[in-house]
Amino acid sequence: MQETPTSLPRRHLLVGSASALAGVGLATWTQGAVAQAATAKPLPAFVSWKDASALIVHSSSTLETKRSAFGTSVITPSEQLFIRNNLNAPDASILDNRDAWTVSIEGVKSPRELSVAELKTLGIETVAMVLQCSGNGRGFFPHKPSGTPWTVGAAGCVVWSGVPLKNVVQALGGLADGARYITGTGGEKIPDGVDPNSVKVERSVPIAALEDALLAWELNGSPISLAHGGPLRLIVPGYTGVNNIKYVKTVAFTPKETTAGIMANRYRVSPVGTKATSEHESVLGMNVKSWINGPLPEDGNVKAGRVQIHGVAFGGIEALRGVEVSLDGGKTWQAARLVGPDLGKYAWRQFVFSADLKPGTYTLASRATDAKGTVQPEQRVENQDGYNNNSWRDHAVQVTVA
Amino acid sequence: MQETPTSLPRRHLLVGSASALAGVGLATWTQGAVAQAATAKPLPAFVSWKDASALIVHSSSTLETKRSAFGTSVITPSEQLFIRNNLNAPDASILDNRDAWTVSIEGVKSPRELSVAELKTLGIETVAMVLQCSGNGRGFFPHKPSGTPWTVGAAGCVVWSGVPLKNVVQALGGLADGARYITGTGGEKIPDGVDPNSVKVERSVPIAALEDALLAWELNGSPISLAHGGPLRLIVPGYTGVNNIKYVKTVAFTPKETTAGIMANRYRVSPVGTKATSEHESVLGMNVKSWINGPLPEDGNVKAGRVQIHGVAFGGIEALRGVEVSLDGGKTWQAARLVGPDLGKYAWRQFVFSADLKPGTYTLASRATDAKGTVQPEQRVENQDGYNNNSWRDHAVQVTVA
Repeated sequence: MQETPTSLPRRHLLVGSASALAGVGLATWTQGAVAQAATAKPLPAFVSWKDASALIVHSSSTLETKRSAFGTSVITPSEQLFIRNNLNAPDASILDNRDAWTVSIEGVKSPRELSVAELKTLGIETVAMVLQCSGNGRGFFPHKPSGTPWTVGAAGCVVWSGVPLKNVVQALGGLADGARYITGTGGEKIPDGVDPNSVKVERSVPIAALEDALLAWELNGSPISLAHGGPLRLIVPGYTGVNNIKYVKTVAFTPKETTAGIMANRYRVSPVGTKATSEHESVLGMNVKSWINGPLPEDGNVKAGRVQIHGVAFGGIEALRGVEVSLDGGKTWQAARLVGPDLGKYAWRQFVFSADLKPGTYTLASRATDAKGTVQPEQRVENQDGYNNNSWRDHAVQVTVA
Repeated sequence: MQETPTSLPRRHLLVGSASALAGVGLATWTQGAVAQAATAKPLPAFVSWKDASALIVHSSSTLETKRSAFGTSVITPSEQLFIRNNLNAPDASILDNRDAWTVSIEGVKSPRELSVAELKTLGIETVAMVLQCSGNGRGFFPHKPSGTPWTVGAAGCVVWSGVPLKNVVQALGGLADGARYITGTGGEKIPDGVDPNSVKVERSVPIAALEDALLAWELNGSPISLAHGGPLRLIVPGYTGVNNIKYVKTVAFTPKETTAGIMANRYRVSPVGTKATSEHESVLGMNVKSWINGPLPEDGNVKAGRVQIHGVAFGGIEALRGVEVSLDGGKTWQAARLVGPDLGKYAWRQFVFSADLKPGTYTLASRATDAKGTVQPEQRVENQDGYNNNSWRDHAVQVTVA
């Protein structure tokens, strides 16, 4: 019966199923489950509420949003948002009393533990931002790095609400001397018999991130689900997913980066064939990036005539300046139009480029530029674990117009 | 079994259920369904995918978002969005092939029928806007108007994507002479044995609305569900819900308003005790409004000390200028801080006011001002059917601080 839930949150179909179902009941759900099981891996139980029709299930802890599912409405619904967990989520009972969850704040003048209830008295802020896995685009690396072969769907643009971390620091007397990093620790259970330091989710980001960081309890208008780090998640806008600590139990303002393996020798950019060490660059702030979400090859032939080419573009840790589109695989570029609401520096913008296309084959590409003038590069930076891929060529799509 | 789905999309609980469920299966779902049925009316089948924990089910066609469910993330998730249908939704089979749905465009130089597939070639735009039922706030009228007694939850801030209606007009040669209204007609089935004109959903809005109107196929990042008007809905930002025609089959640019009953003698502001006629003012553009979503009396006593008072504010058909909060039932007012992303003229803004509250009882109120300087009034305009209530006093909440 574990497949059953997978057929339920599929909104596009459910409206149909629901009507067809009236008074029919379980048998029909079961058929739906079987049909679903036949077409794709079932959703893991802890994300059984997600929209199976919008997701690629790589494993029980890695789910990717289909490129065709991003749509053109800026926000990625939680039901369609990717999943990547470094450790198994804690038991769902941690959500039984969300306000009672506590986080220990260290490296401040008056360090102490605060409950979510207390945090809620210290301020409310909301940020829209791109949440993107460090390995998004790994699937384009020719050397087949270990790890999930994400293409574009280990990313989404979501809205978080919580308390500004700087309000918390202020309430606890300010930063202790020598604080140079924000070091967050997750509340996942450490498997028995392993060195905690080798597996715990503990990451350090530069103290500059304090300006925009949140301790968040809400995602896209609902209390944060277990799958996405509820009841409390450290949000560091502009930084890759792993730096946004789920089930956050400790936030320490430290003079040095953590020595945890996930920081010391993982999530680093090492040459192909070389195991990462602390000598290699850490994966932290995101780089400028864009990709096209329509038309796509999987949609089949595109009808000749006026075509609306659309996608998403973001600056990463910088704001976005603009985005260009190429119809000829990057030989020539034209400015695309940014459409829809601007949700702020850390959100992506959707872009639309309207073209009159004659029959033929086209290689459609997009190329974003950030506020500092950095242009999305043609080539990826080759690296052992396949991080930070923002190559516009890797993200180009070939479509046939007939 | 119809209650079963109602327990499924309840994200906050589901993460718990899902784990508890692993390998247990149906029996547990059934228990969940029973528990749910005991606490509230079950969700109607056509909205069985909604978040039952966030909704008040008034009837099979009227569902209201709980005031406590709005959260602080600007966007209202589709799962939590209110439902108000004037007629039963068409059969869900209309979603089987969304691109094949057609809408007839009349009152242009070259009138014709267009499919959604054709519309998608004419442009893409996205708008965030407040979708609000004309009768939101009706529950505060002392004369108990007929109709659903909504308090604040027949409203939400959502994102629509589709083609600008003006692009469609341009593609069909421009407006015919004398076009003064946009008249949209819904695709609901007319019940047998009634005069179609008395029940059909057909509304006219001033031609000025053409500037921002969309023919939309996407809501909050997903294809529009049947419940919210999919596959195609006429979106008229700034106008009350009824003017945003679901399952739109015809858009006509007309010299006069439609004579359909829903326009001619319903959705009009008539004196209490007087049946509405075409002599009375139509409910069209929304007025300036705000309300507090936290703290709320139902949350119980508020802990003395620093309290974050938050809510939503919007200008309606005008942009929002600002919002004030009162801790003393309107005797004194202080400016509140607008937080989170600004999604544009037609969206609501969330506001936060931070106050140090000593033990006692407080009447918390909010008062918005639109870009033209119109201030949200203290008193509602009394009217027979309970429309357009933007009284700040009606929306005030009394909380006890201890």
